[in-house]
Amino acid sequence: MVSWSNWEVFRGELIGTAILILFGAGVCAAVTLRFSKAKASGWIVIAFGWGFGVLAGAYTAAPLSGGHLNPAVTLGIAVDSGKWGQVWVYVLGQMVGAMVGAVLAWLVYYAQFGANKDTAEATPTLGIFSTIPEIRNPFANFMTEAIATFALVLPVLAFGGTKGLGLSGTQTLIVAFLVVGIGLSLGGPTGYAINPARDLGPRLVHSVLPIPNKGTSDWGYAWVPIAGPLVGGALGGLVHYLAF
Amino acid sequence: MVSWSNWEVFRGELIGTAILILFGAGVCAAVTLRFSKAKASGWIVIAFGWGFGVLAGAYTAAPLSGGHLNPAVTLGIAVDSGKWGQVWVYVLGQMVGAMVGAVLAWLVYYAQFGANKDTAEATPTLGIFSTIPEIRNPFANFMTEAIATFALVLPVLAFGGTKGLGLSGTQTLIVAFLVVGIGLSLGGPTGYAINPARDLGPRLVHSVLPIPNKGTSDWGYAWVPIAGPLVGGALGGLVHYLAF
Amino acid sequence: MVSWSNWEVFRGELIGTAILILFGAGVCAAVTLRFSKAKASGWIVIAFGWGFGVLAGAYTAAPLSGGHLNPAVTLGIAVDSGKWGQVWVYVLGQMVGAMVGAVLAWLVYYAQFGANKDTAEATPTLGIFSTIPEIRNPFANFMTEAIATFALVLPVLAFGGTKGLGLSGTQTLIVAFLVVGIGLSLGGPTGYAINPARDLGPRLVHSVLPIPNKGTSDWGYAWVPIAGPLVGGALGGLVHYLAF
Amino acid sequence: MVSWSNWEVFRGELIGTAILILFGAGVCAAVTLRFSKAKASGWIVIAFGWGFGVLAGAYTAAPLSGGHLNPAVTLGIAVDSGKWGQVWVYVLGQMVGAMVGAVLAWLVYYAQFGANKDTAEATPTLGIFSTIPEIRNPFANFMTEAIATFALVLPVLAFGGTKGLGLSGTQTLIVAFLVVGIGLSLGGPTGYAINPARDLGPRLVHSVLPIPNKGTSDWGYAWVPIAGPLVGGALGGLVHYLAF
Repeated sequence: MVSWSNWEVFRGELIGTAILILFGAGVCAAVTLRFSKAKASGWIVIAFGWGFGVLAGAYTAAPLSGGHLNPAVTLGIAVDSGKWGQVWVYVLGQMVGAMVGAVLAWLVYYAQFGANKDTAEATPTLGIFSTIPEIRNPFANFMTEAIATFALVLPVLAFGGTKGLGLSGTQTLIVAFLVVGIGLSLGGPTGYAINPARDLGPRLVHSVLPIPNKGTSDWGYAWVPIAGPLVGGALGGLVHYLAF
Repeated sequence: MVSWSNWEVFRGELIGTAILILFGAGVCAAVTLRFSKAKASGWIVIAFGWGFGVLAGAYTAAPLSGGHLNPAVTLGIAVDSGKWGQVWVYVLGQMVGAMVGAVLAWLVYYAQFGANKDTAEATPTLGIFSTIPEIRNPFANFMTEAIATFALVLPVLAFGGTKGLGLSGTQTLIVAFLVVGIGLSLGGPTGYAINPARDLGPRLVHSVLPIPNKGTSDWGYAWVPIAGPLVGGALGGLVHYLAF
Repeated sequence: MVSWSNWEVFRGELIGTAILILFGAGVCAAVTLRFSKAKASGWIVIAFGWGFGVLAGAYTAAPLSGGHLNPAVTLGIAVDSGKWGQVWVYVLGQMVGAMVGAVLAWLVYYAQFGANKDTAEATPTLGIFSTIPEIRNPFANFMTEAIATFALVLPVLAFGGTKGLGLSGTQTLIVAFLVVGIGLSLGGPTGYAINPARDLGPRLVHSVLPIPNKGTSDWGYAWVPIAGPLVGGALGGLVHYLAF
Repeated sequence: MVSWSNWEVFRGELIGTAILILFGAGVCAAVTLRFSKAKASGWIVIAFGWGFGVLAGAYTAAPLSGGHLNPAVTLGIAVDSGKWGQVWVYVLGQMVGAMVGAVLAWLVYYAQFGANKDTAEATPTLGIFSTIPEIRNPFANFMTEAIATFALVLPVLAFGGTKGLGLSGTQTLIVAFLVVGIGLSLGGPTGYAINPARDLGPRLVHSVLPIPNKGTSDWGYAWVPIAGPLVGGALGGLVHYLAF
């Protein structure tokens, strides 16, 4: 059993989650913004972009923290293992990392965000940073996020890789494709936050960045992609504890 | 040689098949229903969604039951190995799991299914749950399903992983991409059930769920995606037994 | 060093190449024929369909023959290793297998091929079985096929897996994605035969099958996808022998 | 610790980078040129084509040089490890290889490039060889390239595979998908050079090849895809040295 210090965990989760959000917010910018070569390239691009963001972030963070990158995963592991001592360090690193990643994605698409000042063609930009449901129905949206997160956390726990040792390369690949699959299959209704830090961190960044015509940060919806994934992750941990 | 108890096998197959169908019915809903971000995103999305559903489900079920998730795979393994004792437990878990997965997919797309009540834009929903042939020709449809399932079961057996030990991570990845390939290449005529539980379980769920404008459950076709895959799976097992 | 008997090699190559062509001709049928769910789904579907056909075929043939599935690969290995004794058995199995696979793909799309009798909407069918250049220029087409095959054979040899032991699971995955990449990148001019058996076997089958409105079997072009891949494969073997 | 001779390193990097650029320039030709079967097949094809080019090139070069294929990766490794002795050999092999690869891609699409003489339908061809920003803003373009390259080099170093031993098969797969992800997510603004040799080598080749209607080689922009990736790679090495 590997044991990481708080400082290692914080560093690993910050770096790994920053990379995840750089790729994830990046691919949403790529598909959304004008003057991007990937403009309107479709759902398959979104889903693989996020999945390979998980690959890149988890791959990088693995030697420092095991690469959770997601408070719902950290919660599921804690429920399953009964070890709660470092949960706060994981979540803190994830939140700071998600904000850093959102800023990096904004820098990568700096010229494109700047071109959004042309109001005739401007588009709202929140969807690049955070999730927006297609049909606004808090109960249904919550259920979607909870089930989709359950479908992330239970498989990850079943493979047994993150209990303290981090994932092997093959396991990291499997988790990345698992996240691609969740996007393709379960992302239609809400845009699959499945990770409270992935949604809240970039939403905070969106609310303060000086982006022309950026539109609302939609704080009324912000609780759903926090609560849904936490409930789904905890259920995933519980089912793993009981069934495996 | 690992030996699993009946209760482990049932649990593993139920959970794994539920995850498979959650992803599979989910991706069909994602591409079909209005107010889904993945609406009309194409065949590549369908095929990878189902393939990564196999990845997620088999990955989760592997430590409990080896992760067959498919009566045609279970039958092929039994024909090849001569061990028939737990076949009924596998199939029972698969059928219950397929129904649970279909209900979960419906919950994920609950708001979208609800919006199908707008009759001017409503679409039939059976294709989200079960397969429908493009050209209704029972002999040809049966042959398509039998050959496509043969192309699943023989490779799985050739790799030798499921004879009692479950698949390694790399083997699970290979099987997932094999299923993506079957979808891309052989799914055109019938929508590639290649798994009796995958078709029958969700069809039963479709026939009872309260979905507006859901359309027919098409029981007249239901025997084809049961009989075709069983014949193809048995042939796969037989060819493996004889040729390897 | 594993040593396979002639009968094992023949069986392995026949079965593996049949699976390869079933997937490959299948995906071309899926994208080309009317009444296919994958109609017009694009180049990404073609490339992944063929790549996962290599995965399925090589995965299946590996324990019997190492899974070459391609006379150009067999030739490259012979040039590199100096062992020529079983080349004829490999090629014989590949040719028979390619014909069996083409017939299987025709059976999978039997109803769709039958519907091609509606002459107003009928399409030529050779492209489902064999390659057709976009610009007919024998010298350029030959060069395209030779370079693309070189880009297959040299990497396969560099990894060292096929010299007698067959590929590991991970190596099989890498070869499959290598073939996807060759399709995406180098398939534009000629449709990337990169395998004499893959082109000649199905062309023979196309010339005899009773398909309505099937069009020409284009024997005038048939030498290019034989000669180009053989030259490219031999060069791949030679460069590997000299540089590694 | 494996130690490679200068001649091995030069050979490996030349061959590996040539394969990378053959696939990368190839996929850009496939999507851009008339009379290509992959014409207009989209961003997903571009990103996977380049990623599998990395797979093919790194896979081939691994036994000779570890397969850097990119001066920014070589620089990041040198900054991290403090070993600078063979940097010049790596970069020399990469530059020669990139030029060889660009010529090979031109040969594969020889007939298509020839058909570009039809001026009514002719298109500029630089984008097949080198990168062109969507919005010409040197500061923003530099920043995009630096961050995207940082997102390549830090993960590669974190996995620890290239410090002298080359990557395993699984690690090569992960790096390939990492590059696909960088393309999907971060390639929108500038076309993701993330590699000085990948941009400069083919630009030199473009400037001398006899391509009809080839358009400008745009030397005014050429410093950005050199300087940005070098700064990003060095930062990746520095962060790895400090944080891991």
